Amino acid sequence: MFEFTIDATSEAARAGTLVLPHGAVATPCFMPVGTQGTVRALSPNDLRAVGATLLLANSYHLHVRPGEDTVAQLGRLHRFMAWDRPLLTDSGGFQVFSLERFRRVSEQGVEFQSHVDGSRRSLSPERATEIQWALGADVAMAFDHVVPGGADEATARDAMERTMRWLERCAKRHEELRRSGDQADGHAASDRPSACPPDRQTLWPILQGGTHLDLRTEGVRRILDLGDWTGLAIGGLSVGEPKAAQLAVLETLEPRLPPARPRYLMGVGFPEDLVAAVERGVDLFDCVAPTRNGRNGSAFTPDGPLNIRNAEHRADPRPLDATCDCETCVTFSRGYLRHLFVADELLGLRLLSLHNVRFLIRLAQAMRAATASGGFARWADEWRRRYIQPGTT
Amino acid sequence: MFEFTIDATSEAARAGTLVLPHGAVATPCFMPVGTQGTVRALSPNDLRAVGATLLLANSYHLHVRPGEDTVAQLGRLHRFMAWDRPLLTDSGGFQVFSLERFRRVSEQGVEFQSHVDGSRRSLSPERATEIQWALGADVAMAFDHVVPGGADEATARDAMERTMRWLERCAKRHEELRRSGDQADGHAASDRPSACPPDRQTLWPILQGGTHLDLRTEGVRRILDLGDWTGLAIGGLSVGEPKAAQLAVLETLEPRLPPARPRYLMGVGFPEDLVAAVERGVDLFDCVAPTRNGRNGSAFTPDGPLNIRNAEHRADPRPLDATCDCETCVTFSRGYLRHLFVADELLGLRLLSLHNVRFLIRLAQAMRAATASGGFARWADEWRRRYIQPGTT
Repeated sequence: MFEFTIDATSEAARAGTLVLPHGAVATPCFMPVGTQGTVRALSPNDLRAVGATLLLANSYHLHVRPGEDTVAQLGRLHRFMAWDRPLLTDSGGFQVFSLERFRRVSEQGVEFQSHVDGSRRSLSPERATEIQWALGADVAMAFDHVVPGGADEATARDAMERTMRWLERCAKRHEELRRSGDQADGHAASDRPSACPPDRQTLWPILQGGTHLDLRTEGVRRILDLGDWTGLAIGGLSVGEPKAAQLAVLETLEPRLPPARPRYLMGVGFPEDLVAAVERGVDLFDCVAPTRNGRNGSAFTPDGPLNIRNAEHRADPRPLDATCDCETCVTFSRGYLRHLFVADELLGLRLLSLHNVRFLIRLAQAMRAATASGGFARWADEWRRRYIQPGTT
Repeated sequence: MFEFTIDATSEAARAGTLVLPHGAVATPCFMPVGTQGTVRALSPNDLRAVGATLLLANSYHLHVRPGEDTVAQLGRLHRFMAWDRPLLTDSGGFQVFSLERFRRVSEQGVEFQSHVDGSRRSLSPERATEIQWALGADVAMAFDHVVPGGADEATARDAMERTMRWLERCAKRHEELRRSGDQADGHAASDRPSACPPDRQTLWPILQGGTHLDLRTEGVRRILDLGDWTGLAIGGLSVGEPKAAQLAVLETLEPRLPPARPRYLMGVGFPEDLVAAVERGVDLFDCVAPTRNGRNGSAFTPDGPLNIRNAEHRADPRPLDATCDCETCVTFSRGYLRHLFVADELLGLRLLSLHNVRFLIRLAQAMRAATASGGFARWADEWRRRYIQPGTT
């Protein structure tokens, strides 16, 4: 149910196949983010059409609204959002530390005030695990303590040590839930028409440690000492640190991570970040950039990002990206897309989101092909020469 | 190119086939409204999937933004919005009289201030005809003077008389454009990759006269004296008049309208309005209600409208409408749809719009079938018994 096979390598880049309860995922893989149980502006049919295989949803958001009990009553997350392919839920750690103005961290967990209704709530490793169990995604993430990109070593160590202790508690609770079966989240099994028994869920640890290479190295070793995880996530990056520091962490980790396990770099990223990370052995990614930027009128193209609101596109009959096969690019002109944005039409948000997600999925597919052909480094150089225009970075 | 065949009648209700340059339209037919060249929140694929055959777009809005010249440069309206089935454009009369705070009506036309940028603009029968010629829809509408629902007879007569004089000017300009061919809108034919030669466009008159039955009767006679139109629109209804007054106009007109021409009731409507109008011999409809109400969380169902935001839907696993075959109803639960609205997710706007448009298209199809089977009146009674719940009207 949880297998990962490396199909090819070229330099550090890997092409693999991750088998999860709801299907197989070819890696490298970009996961679109469905924060609240929906990838903003896109439908499940849209996501299937652009080749998405694995989606991410946020436990924090779904816990706050509509609540994991409601999701469970509606058949758990797969049925709730009508996604029949693999799903991964984030634990809520990142959201608690990034979204909330008020929060109090203790060894027990985190108290915070909901961003929706101001209500006082708390999350702990156990609760985060129970929530994700109720949601029933293929992959659950351990509850972690995230610190900002510029955190000093003492702060980063404190958070890393806490994340390590919390990981043990998550793993213990997850194992209890697995053993107790379907009753564990407080609902009798007969209460709901679940399409996806959560006893098929796996739990992945999240490595913290900021930009401190010694902490990262120590963290990996200690995580691996704790268990034989089916995958491992690198957290606490893409949170404000310099790009070079992010790459240094990936380079330090690459030889220390178990080759036979998928490596998930959380919250990354932009096209150039995906290429740099795959070059350093990463397999999985998630980021809101394609949908958020799409809603702002920014489209990825092989020649770098393009702002569709610009006047130059007014009467341009060309597609956004002539190399792309998505509905947006095969159907509409830049001129029409610009009109949709200038006229504040909802269809524009969707069409650019759709294209940007397709762009990252095709990018991942291209990296897979370049790896299989053995020439990843050359492919990456050529890709960058075209994508990164002088003056755009 | 412009044929209308009556396939069946039952009482005043008619089932027909309207053949336009871009395809055939089975009537009764509900046209979704693509005000700015896009049916809000829906894509052309969505519209094809719900069975839309004829869309309406607004000359006024497209003239103000992006401008008919830009649309023409991008291949005219069909190619611009990627709709390969029939299109109808409204003349802009209704918008000038309903949207603008400032306007000055003269015999020549209307001066107004753009609602987008405040610029001073003008429309006349000739300009409205030229704009629609440049857009290139299958059906163009004559430029009309609309008065509010409560207008007295003198006001209504004044507007009706002006609309009649303007109709002659529209027809004259339309004939000139047809004769001069593709050059007429100021672009050389070679300048643009038009998919739809506009010389196939037809022009329909709009009958005004408010709720004054004598004016309406006189208006029909005078319009028919002016030409052998391929269709005829009833304007100036659904603008604030009592429902009974609207029905009285339709009943007065029914025996006076040429049976072999399609009758288009502009700006109507809600499901119960469509049924009442088909009962009185109307063939075509347009209204923003399905998309606007959908975006507000209101869904049509056979048991009357439903507000998806209501707490009762929180954990309801049932579809919006168990009798419906649209993507929304076959895929998602009421509980999930409510979550999308409560969480302000864009997908909710689209899914309810999609269902509501499908609802009206299926309603039109059901009325066609009831007409063909000869039992429209009984069908309508049964439909109303279910749809109009005690206390909802």
